[in-house]
Amino acid sequence: MNFRSDNTAPAAPEIIAALSNVNEGAASAYGEDQWSKRLDEAFSALFEREVRVFTVASGTAANAIAVASLTPPWGAVLCHREAHIECDECGAAEFYSGGAKLVLVDGDAAKVSVSALHEAIARNERGIHSVKPAALSVSQTTEKGALYSPMEMAALGQAAKAAGLGVHMDGARFGNAVAALGCKPADITWRAGVDILSFGATKNGAIAAEAIVCFDVARAEEITRRRKRSGHLLSKGRFAAAQLLAYLEGDLWLTLARRSNALAARLGEAAGGYLLHPVESNQVFIKPGPNALAKLRAAGAEFYDWGAAQSGEARLVVSWNQSEADVDAMAGLLSSLR
Amino acid sequence: MNFRSDNTAPAAPEIIAALSNVNEGAASAYGEDQWSKRLDEAFSALFEREVRVFTVASGTAANAIAVASLTPPWGAVLCHREAHIECDECGAAEFYSGGAKLVLVDGDAAKVSVSALHEAIARNERGIHSVKPAALSVSQTTEKGALYSPMEMAALGQAAKAAGLGVHMDGARFGNAVAALGCKPADITWRAGVDILSFGATKNGAIAAEAIVCFDVARAEEITRRRKRSGHLLSKGRFAAAQLLAYLEGDLWLTLARRSNALAARLGEAAGGYLLHPVESNQVFIKPGPNALAKLRAAGAEFYDWGAAQSGEARLVVSWNQSEADVDAMAGLLSSLR
Amino acid sequence: MNFRSDNTAPAAPEIIAALSNVNEGAASAYGEDQWSKRLDEAFSALFEREVRVFTVASGTAANAIAVASLTPPWGAVLCHREAHIECDECGAAEFYSGGAKLVLVDGDAAKVSVSALHEAIARNERGIHSVKPAALSVSQTTEKGALYSPMEMAALGQAAKAAGLGVHMDGARFGNAVAALGCKPADITWRAGVDILSFGATKNGAIAAEAIVCFDVARAEEITRRRKRSGHLLSKGRFAAAQLLAYLEGDLWLTLARRSNALAARLGEAAGGYLLHPVESNQVFIKPGPNALAKLRAAGAEFYDWGAAQSGEARLVVSWNQSEADVDAMAGLLSSLR
Amino acid sequence: MNFRSDNTAPAAPEIIAALSNVNEGAASAYGEDQWSKRLDEAFSALFEREVRVFTVASGTAANAIAVASLTPPWGAVLCHREAHIECDECGAAEFYSGGAKLVLVDGDAAKVSVSALHEAIARNERGIHSVKPAALSVSQTTEKGALYSPMEMAALGQAAKAAGLGVHMDGARFGNAVAALGCKPADITWRAGVDILSFGATKNGAIAAEAIVCFDVARAEEITRRRKRSGHLLSKGRFAAAQLLAYLEGDLWLTLARRSNALAARLGEAAGGYLLHPVESNQVFIKPGPNALAKLRAAGAEFYDWGAAQSGEARLVVSWNQSEADVDAMAGLLSSLR
Repeated sequence: MNFRSDNTAPAAPEIIAALSNVNEGAASAYGEDQWSKRLDEAFSALFEREVRVFTVASGTAANAIAVASLTPPWGAVLCHREAHIECDECGAAEFYSGGAKLVLVDGDAAKVSVSALHEAIARNERGIHSVKPAALSVSQTTEKGALYSPMEMAALGQAAKAAGLGVHMDGARFGNAVAALGCKPADITWRAGVDILSFGATKNGAIAAEAIVCFDVARAEEITRRRKRSGHLLSKGRFAAAQLLAYLEGDLWLTLARRSNALAARLGEAAGGYLLHPVESNQVFIKPGPNALAKLRAAGAEFYDWGAAQSGEARLVVSWNQSEADVDAMAGLLSSLR
Repeated sequence: MNFRSDNTAPAAPEIIAALSNVNEGAASAYGEDQWSKRLDEAFSALFEREVRVFTVASGTAANAIAVASLTPPWGAVLCHREAHIECDECGAAEFYSGGAKLVLVDGDAAKVSVSALHEAIARNERGIHSVKPAALSVSQTTEKGALYSPMEMAALGQAAKAAGLGVHMDGARFGNAVAALGCKPADITWRAGVDILSFGATKNGAIAAEAIVCFDVARAEEITRRRKRSGHLLSKGRFAAAQLLAYLEGDLWLTLARRSNALAARLGEAAGGYLLHPVESNQVFIKPGPNALAKLRAAGAEFYDWGAAQSGEARLVVSWNQSEADVDAMAGLLSSLR
Repeated sequence: MNFRSDNTAPAAPEIIAALSNVNEGAASAYGEDQWSKRLDEAFSALFEREVRVFTVASGTAANAIAVASLTPPWGAVLCHREAHIECDECGAAEFYSGGAKLVLVDGDAAKVSVSALHEAIARNERGIHSVKPAALSVSQTTEKGALYSPMEMAALGQAAKAAGLGVHMDGARFGNAVAALGCKPADITWRAGVDILSFGATKNGAIAAEAIVCFDVARAEEITRRRKRSGHLLSKGRFAAAQLLAYLEGDLWLTLARRSNALAARLGEAAGGYLLHPVESNQVFIKPGPNALAKLRAAGAEFYDWGAAQSGEARLVVSWNQSEADVDAMAGLLSSLR
Repeated sequence: MNFRSDNTAPAAPEIIAALSNVNEGAASAYGEDQWSKRLDEAFSALFEREVRVFTVASGTAANAIAVASLTPPWGAVLCHREAHIECDECGAAEFYSGGAKLVLVDGDAAKVSVSALHEAIARNERGIHSVKPAALSVSQTTEKGALYSPMEMAALGQAAKAAGLGVHMDGARFGNAVAALGCKPADITWRAGVDILSFGATKNGAIAAEAIVCFDVARAEEITRRRKRSGHLLSKGRFAAAQLLAYLEGDLWLTLARRSNALAARLGEAAGGYLLHPVESNQVFIKPGPNALAKLRAAGAEFYDWGAAQSGEARLVVSWNQSEADVDAMAGLLSSLR
């Protein structure tokens, strides 16, 4: 019953197979191979418009390169107080951007609200003495597993654009979001004002493959340079491309995400009143108290504490390959707490 | 007859197999898995002393993190004018170090000589108005395929240490160097004064796996942070570790390197007087003139021009999986030029 | 009745005279002149221990160089939410430090409390995924004109040291603090755990002269380099040194600060219940409401609004040369509001 | 007989007087005072077109801010091997630009030639693996006291523009250049393709005042931010503005520069065959050999050795206030060497 994180999961068999399939003969290096060259087309089809795609090895790299391409060094990047770029990337956004400042915004379930965004912009527009609001970064799903609907995202995007901000979406779990919302990928990205998306695949079945999807083609040259300069342009690019192509092939990404979402929903039902937020994707946040958490662990469940120390909160993440038996056992344990 | 680069080669079957082998069940993320945890031990055995090892996805990342850990932002990193960190990494060393300066040193076959090193240090020690010499970075094999013998490397290391410099070795083709020199890995690294090694595996058979080998354990914390902050700490670390463990297993790395070295030697013999440098590893540099190069290409050979435009120089790189037939055909072509 | 800021004030006559006094003949450049060479001695005497002093042209430069010398690029600098380094320096600390993160702490009157400090440290010690708490930066006087007593400062310093943090003090109005506290400069700096002080002179009578006072001599070399590299080592250093020497001479700095403190106290008495905080130095924060502020302005008073828009708060700053007539008139206006 | 450097000189009396003249009453801070507001107009008149002017405290700051505004972090700045930004600013350009690379070009008398520029651009245009040529930086006068004529500068500017490079001019001794060339300031700047000029005043009579003169108004916002963020926006801006206004007033800058140029010419005549370069401004480079230099010093002359150690070269710089007696004595010594 390991619900620690979806990045403890192995890779999907289709991904592993893809590596073998491209492992034949010579291929041009540094993204000039035939598979890498198909990425722009594959993602353009997926997003129903021309995009430029850049593979990188981690979500941190995708986020940091994207954010740095949307802010000058003296800019402010507005994001939620619990955003991954703020809490979990050891200052990568600051490093890549040359010292931009993350300005933190509050909001339920790690969601940035339009009003909080407006207020943060106003607070930081004090002329030359303060940093200059330059970008908004949101996570879809959020760090609490919540979702922005297409309409919510469009409202945020509009508010950001009106203030002259670029918009980045951290889609480490973008598949779970699209699967849950049942929308088109375009509906929560460029149609809603997103300029650059970190399209995650690793958590949902890949080995190490994330895509920076750039909707604003004019920014592609900058991203190209930032990727190379940070050591994220891989010489044997075919292996990164192969993972992403296999991930999209036959909607594998949505199939896997739908499955983990559905299993998480089961856990959510079992958790009942202990739920901190409705379960909207593959993450479940509960607050049964410290004793109950100890009981779950004693019964073999693995997960991370969340929130403040001793708050009795926990996070359960369902992976793409989580067994139904695991989930049923965990659901049973959760039910028994009530 | 593709001799463009060893990074056009596929991965060795042992490496592909290793990925499948570790693709079972959950594993702790971010380098806490059982395979990643074996890396320090495996490399410590290889290098006959305690080392700390950090996997990254590219040689550029390995080099830039290593160099940044050896210089303050106001430092100078001395390297050969043709060094990969100077010519081919889009300023990665400057980015990671916060703006250190690469000071360029000349020398035959892309080798830094002790005297050139001394002179460069002297030229740059002008107190606070200039940057401060902080590190030496050498490539083994060099960008011209040449080698530093253990004795040569020790002399360089000693000169660097006497001037208070840290020492980095770019070992993108470290396997080819050790295979060719027939020495212990320790003999050309820490025993010769090297503090941090970029241990390359990608060119010689891996998919995307390089190791930063840190001989100075006190610097490990800094490298840990720099890796995370640059997005090079992978969540599913097992797949990077698996590649490196398979690469070392049964001396696969040396077996592959010996093969490409030996095949390159054949090309060298065939090239005869057209050789620009003796062939010491798996790279062959020739200067038969523009017409001869055109003839080679017309006969189906693929390779990069080298040196100044229209200089008639070229580089041939033999990959780990190059077919003997390819090499024989190429050797035949080269012989026919004479 | 201009109470906008103490940096709208002219320079004290003693400072102007000092410039003329040193304007004779040749003097070695870049801090090797006889006046610059006396700075270390003068400040060492003032602080009752060996210190190293570095003149810079602005408080922002002093703060940013000091902070950057106390944190690695992946570090966190804890400071108050209203700190000058956070709000008013356009990201200088992030720029100089190579992308460190300012972690914001709350507290009354812009003071960092020990408990808030503890909590902020705890919240940010999550291992490699987050930035690493590296330094505490406090302002003395604070951005609300409040003071840390020697005992309060010592408690903060102790808490910081216990957590392994370096301590920086932004003393843009250090003279006002020492004058108000009636303590020794040492009592609120190195004796209380401060490693580096930004010793301001500009606001209190100089033209453009701030001193980075470094109590930890081992950090001097780094500061030397950071100052040069940022263009803050002046070629004609005598003119910066002369200002600081004149500023200390005969306790000019304290004389001027005592005066503005005393005049501010008068305003505080007149403001009575409109005071947001007790007046502890030369700044007065009032909240008489928007209408009252309009009335003050109509009567000829100049000052900045403070706090949120339309909150009816204002800041009055008394300069070293503020006329008594000005202060009396303003006090009269304030009294009339009640 | 102190010919060490023009930055050992005191300030001109007009400059000192200007400080007193503006030292009356309150003035808005941070460049909003009446004197600072006159700078744009004064320099626009001088340069015969609309410019934006930013005062900073040092030439290093002016150069670094200018260069950083002309290159992305992954760019290359082409400059002469002896350029001040390369040799004497402790990596300021790299710091401010976020790690751009200085690419060094050779040329007589520290002048960049069009052919050397072309070659350097060609050598560095290798696509994404190398940094991208982004700017040319030239010194006028050069570090060897030489001059670019308006025609030479226009040719360089044209070559730079044709390659898409921005152009920066380090005019630490711009006054000496204009005085010597007898041209309009515009002729060697924007009319010749210069985008940003570091207009030096400190060496030629100011206390600490340099102006970044920006001919491309679209870049002004970026420079504004970079200046603030680096601590070079002074709170009491009137004192910096006053120096520059007095410097321009009645062509003081040209009067002072003409004088030092003329005195340097006398030294040049006396040096005769020992001259390394014709004397074109206020610097004199000689090579009479180590013994002769020792003799000069024994007779009371002060100056810096130049070139390689023991090369017997020296630099003599004539300051704006150098006494004729000094110059005559030195000329006599030089003549006696022959």
